[in-house]
Amino acid sequence: MNFRLVARQLGIICLLIGVTMIGSLLWAFPRFGRRNHLPELEHHTFETAGFIALVVSILICFGVGILLLYPGRRAQGSLYRKEAMAVVGLSWVLATFLGALPFWFSGCVRGPAIRLTGPTQFPQTHEFKIFGWRQWNDLSDQPVLSEKQLLGVQALLEAGRDGLTAEQLSRVTNSSEVPTALRELADGSAEWHRVLIVPGSDVAARGVQGHFQVTWIKMTFVDALFESQSGFSTTGATVISDLEDPRLVPHCILFWRSSTHFLGGLGIIVLFVVILGQGSAGKALMRAEIPGPSKEGTQTLMQHTAQVFAAIYCGLTALLAILLKIEGLSWFDAFCHSFGTMATGGFSTYNDSIGHFGLARIDYTIIVFMVLAGTNFALLYALFCIKPGQLFSNVEWRTYMALIALVTLLVVLFGLAHDNFDSPSSAIQYGLFQVVAIVTTTGFGTNDFDAWNNFARAVLVLLMFWGGCAGSTGGGMKVIRHILFLKIIRLEVEQSFHPTVIRTLQLGGDSVVVPNLGKNILVYFGLILVIFIFSWMAFVMIEPDTTWASNTDHKLIDSASAIAATLNNIGPGLGIVGPKQNYGHFSWASKLLFTWLMMLGRLEIFVILVLAWPRFWRSF
Amino acid sequence: MNFRLVARQLGIICLLIGVTMIGSLLWAFPRFGRRNHLPELEHHTFETAGFIALVVSILICFGVGILLLYPGRRAQGSLYRKEAMAVVGLSWVLATFLGALPFWFSGCVRGPAIRLTGPTQFPQTHEFKIFGWRQWNDLSDQPVLSEKQLLGVQALLEAGRDGLTAEQLSRVTNSSEVPTALRELADGSAEWHRVLIVPGSDVAARGVQGHFQVTWIKMTFVDALFESQSGFSTTGATVISDLEDPRLVPHCILFWRSSTHFLGGLGIIVLFVVILGQGSAGKALMRAEIPGPSKEGTQTLMQHTAQVFAAIYCGLTALLAILLKIEGLSWFDAFCHSFGTMATGGFSTYNDSIGHFGLARIDYTIIVFMVLAGTNFALLYALFCIKPGQLFSNVEWRTYMALIALVTLLVVLFGLAHDNFDSPSSAIQYGLFQVVAIVTTTGFGTNDFDAWNNFARAVLVLLMFWGGCAGSTGGGMKVIRHILFLKIIRLEVEQSFHPTVIRTLQLGGDSVVVPNLGKNILVYFGLILVIFIFSWMAFVMIEPDTTWASNTDHKLIDSASAIAATLNNIGPGLGIVGPKQNYGHFSWASKLLFTWLMMLGRLEIFVILVLAWPRFWRSF
Repeated sequence: MNFRLVARQLGIICLLIGVTMIGSLLWAFPRFGRRNHLPELEHHTFETAGFIALVVSILICFGVGILLLYPGRRAQGSLYRKEAMAVVGLSWVLATFLGALPFWFSGCVRGPAIRLTGPTQFPQTHEFKIFGWRQWNDLSDQPVLSEKQLLGVQALLEAGRDGLTAEQLSRVTNSSEVPTALRELADGSAEWHRVLIVPGSDVAARGVQGHFQVTWIKMTFVDALFESQSGFSTTGATVISDLEDPRLVPHCILFWRSSTHFLGGLGIIVLFVVILGQGSAGKALMRAEIPGPSKEGTQTLMQHTAQVFAAIYCGLTALLAILLKIEGLSWFDAFCHSFGTMATGGFSTYNDSIGHFGLARIDYTIIVFMVLAGTNFALLYALFCIKPGQLFSNVEWRTYMALIALVTLLVVLFGLAHDNFDSPSSAIQYGLFQVVAIVTTTGFGTNDFDAWNNFARAVLVLLMFWGGCAGSTGGGMKVIRHILFLKIIRLEVEQSFHPTVIRTLQLGGDSVVVPNLGKNILVYFGLILVIFIFSWMAFVMIEPDTTWASNTDHKLIDSASAIAATLNNIGPGLGIVGPKQNYGHFSWASKLLFTWLMMLGRLEIFVILVLAWPRFWRSF
Repeated sequence: MNFRLVARQLGIICLLIGVTMIGSLLWAFPRFGRRNHLPELEHHTFETAGFIALVVSILICFGVGILLLYPGRRAQGSLYRKEAMAVVGLSWVLATFLGALPFWFSGCVRGPAIRLTGPTQFPQTHEFKIFGWRQWNDLSDQPVLSEKQLLGVQALLEAGRDGLTAEQLSRVTNSSEVPTALRELADGSAEWHRVLIVPGSDVAARGVQGHFQVTWIKMTFVDALFESQSGFSTTGATVISDLEDPRLVPHCILFWRSSTHFLGGLGIIVLFVVILGQGSAGKALMRAEIPGPSKEGTQTLMQHTAQVFAAIYCGLTALLAILLKIEGLSWFDAFCHSFGTMATGGFSTYNDSIGHFGLARIDYTIIVFMVLAGTNFALLYALFCIKPGQLFSNVEWRTYMALIALVTLLVVLFGLAHDNFDSPSSAIQYGLFQVVAIVTTTGFGTNDFDAWNNFARAVLVLLMFWGGCAGSTGGGMKVIRHILFLKIIRLEVEQSFHPTVIRTLQLGGDSVVVPNLGKNILVYFGLILVIFIFSWMAFVMIEPDTTWASNTDHKLIDSASAIAATLNNIGPGLGIVGPKQNYGHFSWASKLLFTWLMMLGRLEIFVILVLAWPRFWRSF
C-alpha cells in the first residue's frame, strides 16, 4: 500500500471541504438567509454561534489537510486498485468527521425535551424525550391548560418518580391521550426555555408543586456524524426535528448541511464512478460509453471524464437553482434544494420537505431534475452533444423510465381506490413525485406516503433497492444490476434442465462478454442481502422496544424500512422513520449503525467493507 | 422427453397414494379414534361421510393410476435428468390433487360463519366470515345476551344491508368490541346450525326482526388443495380453525391429513434426495457420504440408498409413535404426531398443537426427533452403523446444532428479559422447542411465539430461511447452502482488492472442488429472493386490507412472514398467520399462491419452476 500517495489525495479532499465550508459563512448574515413562506423573525440577527463554528471547522479542515499533505509531498507512483479503494473509502470517513464539526460546534438543536422540576416532590430532574415533534406545529396555541393537558401533567408527575420517558408513560398509563396531552402542553409554552408552572388544578390540590420546562436537546457528536454522513452519502435522513427556526438551527449551518449533499454528489461522480468504475457491471457499461478521446491513455481519459462529469453536475445544479429562483424561491432555498436534488440527497430546509411550497410547478421542475440526476452521466453528455439517440436507445435508461411509469401508474390507481388522494391530478402529482424521489434515491416528499395504502407502502419500500442508473449520483443497487440479475436467474433456470446448452447474456441485442460478470452481480445481491439481514437483526436487538411507544408491533417493519432507507441512501422510511418523522429519537448505537450503512450503501459496499478487513492493509 | 416412462412412474405414485389412503379408513370407527384430554363425545358414531369420501378417493387414485400405467406399460429407456425432474414435479402436483379429494368429498368444515336472516328487513341472507375462531373456545358460555353482544347484534344488523364482513364491520363502527361481541354471540349458540332469535332488546324495539344462525363453512376445493399441499410439502399450515370436534372434521380425514405428511416426507427422501441429489450443493455432499456399495452402478446405488433412507424414515416414525404411546398418547394421536414430526411437517390434531398436552416429557421427545428429522439421513445411517464420528465431525451438522444452541440461548435470554416466560426452566422448554420446530421447518408449537418480544419474533422469522441439513426431510434453504454462501461472499470481498490471488472454498478443512458450485449457491439465493419479493408484492396486492380487520398496519410484516412460512415449509408465521391463527380467512387467490409457494419451496424451486417453462417440454 502506497500510504504517501493516499495521504496526499486525502489532504486535497480536506482542503476542498474547507473551501466549500467558506461558502456557508455568507448565510450567517440575516439579509441573505431569507426563507419562503415563513414569517420574518424579529430577532433574527447575525448568527454568531454558527459563524464561529464554521470558522473553527474551516481552520481544522485546512490544518488536517496540511498535516496530510506534508508526508504526501514526496509521494510517487500512480494509484492502483488498492490505493484507489483506500482513497475513496478513507476520504468518505474523513469527510464525515470534518463535516460533522459545524453541527457540533454550533450547538444545533436536535429536538425538544420536557424537563420536570419540583422543589419538594422531586429530588432530581427528569428528562422526557418527546416523540414525533414535527406534528406539534399543527397544534393550536392553548394558553389555558385543558382537561387533557392536566391528564398529561398528572401522568408525568406520577411517572416522573420512576424516571419514565414519555413513550414509556403511554404504555404505563395505557392511555394514548398522554403523549398528545404532553405535546399540547409543550406547545402551550411557546417561549423556549420558559418554566411553565402548573396552575391551580386537582394536581396542585394534591400538594404537588411541579414545574415544567421545555428545553432543547443539542446535537451530540454522534448526531452530528449521522447528519454529516447523511449529507455526504446523499441520503437525506435527519436527526433534526425542527428546521424552520434559526434559533434552533442557524441558516449558515443549514446551508452547510445542504452543501454536504453537493460535495457528496460530486465525490460520487468524480471519485467513485470515474476512479473505481463502479464495479464490473458499471464498468462494462461505462467503458463503452465513457466520453472523451478514447485513443489516449487511461489516466488522461479518466481526467477528461472526471472534468466532463463534474461540469455537467455543477451546470445542472446551477441551472436548477436559477429555475427555482425564477419560480419564486429565495436564493437560500433555491440553492439548498438544488443541491439536494442533483445529488439525489433529499435534505430540505423545511419540515414538510418540498410539500412546504405546495406548488405543482416546483414539484414538476424537481421531478425532471431528479430524473436527470438518476441518469448515467455519460448519457447526459451524449444528450448535450445533441446525440439524444444514445439516451433513448439505452437499455438501462429505458428500463429506469419504464419502471417509473409503471410504479406511478400502480401507486396512482391503488391510491385513488383507497382514497389516499383528493383528485386524479393530485394523485399523479404526488404519486409521480414520490416514485421518482424514491427510485432516484432522493427521498424528498410532498405527501406522507406512509399514510397511503399498504400496497403503495410495500412497493415504495421495495423500490428503495432499485436505485438510479449506473454512473449517476443516484444510490441504491442500480437499474443495470437488476436487469442483469433477472437475466442471469432466467438463464440459470434453463441451465438446470439443459446443462449442456450454453447461452450467453444478452443486453439490448448484444452479448455481454465481461469475465465473471454474472458471478459479480450475484455476489453483490448476496452482500446486500447479508448486510440487510444482519443490520436488521442488530438494530432490532440494540434499539429498545420503548422507542416505539405504544406501537411496539410496528418495530419489525419500521426497522426493516429504516435499514432499507439508509442502506440505499433514500432517507424516509415507514412508521417511526416515515416522511413526517426523523431519526433523532434512536439510541446512539443505532445512529452509528445507520451512519455505517449509509456509507456502505453509497460506496457500493466493497470500498467500505474492506476498510475493516485486516488483510486489506497488509502489503505484499 | 420420454413421456411413457414419466407416465409409468406417476401411475405407481397414484397407486401408492391410494394404498396409503386405505390406512385412514380404520379411524372412521369410533373405537379407534380416541383422543387425549378431550371429553368423550356422546354422539361420536361411525364417520359415514369421511368413510365414503375416502373410499371414493381411493377408487379415483386407483383409476388414475391404472390410466397412467396403461400408456406407460411399454416404456423403455432410463430416467435422465429432464425425466427425473418431470417425475418429481408432476408427482407432487398429482399428489396434491388426489390428496385434496377426501377433504372436499367429506365436506370438512373450515370455520364458522354467522348467517343473518330476517323476514322483513333483509331481502337476502348475508354471510359473515369470522376471524380468529380458535380463541372462541376460551369464552364462557353465556345464555343471556350481554350488553356487548347486543352491540354486536346491532352493528351486524346495520352493516348487514351493505353485506359487510365482520372484519369490515369493526372498521366501520370503529369499535374493537364488535368482533368480540360477535364471537360471544356465536359462542352462546353452542348447538350447531341452530337459529338464535334476538330476544326483546332495544334492537327488537326498533322493529328489527333479525335472526342469527351460526353455520359452518365447508372446505372449498381450493381449501382442500391448500390443505393437501400443506401436507405433502410437510408445511403444516392449515385452513381449518377447529380440529377437535369430529362433527367438523372426522377422525379418518384428520388421519389422512397427517398421512400426507408421512407420504410427503417419504417422497422427499426417496424421490427428491435420491433421484435429484438436491442440487449440486447437496449432491456434492451426498456423493461423498451416501451409503451403499459404491462400486456398483448408479442405478443400483440409487435403489440401495432409497431403500436404506426409506427404512430409516419408517423406522424412526414407528419408534416415535411407540414412544408417544408409552408417554400417554392414544394410538391415533401418537401416529399423527409421529408423522408430523419425522416429516418435519407440523400438522397436529389439536388446536393448540403440542401445547395441548402441556407435558415436558412429550416436548423433549419431540424435540429429539425433530432434530433427527432435520439431520442428513446419510449421517443417520452412519450413526446406526455405530459410526457416530461421521455425525459429530460433519461441518453441516455441527453448524446446525450450534445454531440451535445459539438462537435458543438468545431467545431464552431476551424472553426472560421481556417477561415472556414464567421461569427459566419453562423458558428453556418453550424456547428450545420453538427454535427446533422452526429450524427443522416442522412448525409445531407449545407457546405462542408471536406474543414474545420483537427480537425473538424477528430471529424466528429469519430462522425460517435457515432450514435443516441437506438430505433430510427438513425444508428451508438448508444449512450447507448458508455455510457455503457466507464463505463465497467472504472470498469475493477479498477478491475485490486482490483480483489476482485465487483462493478456493474450504469446508471442514478440505477444498470443495465442484464445478460452478459457487454460482449455483448464489443463484439459489437469488431465486429465493426473487420469489420472496414477487410473492410478497403479489400477496399484498391481491389480499384486501380488510382481512386484517383493525390491524391493517400489520399487513406488510404479517404477509412477509406468511410468505416465509409457506416458502420454507414451516407453517405458522406472525400476526394473522401466527401460531394461534390459521390460513382459512384468506381469499382463494392467496390460498393458491401459498399452495404454489409450498410446492416450490419443498422441491427447491427448480423442479416446480420448470413445469411452467415452455422450453422444458420441448424435446430436442
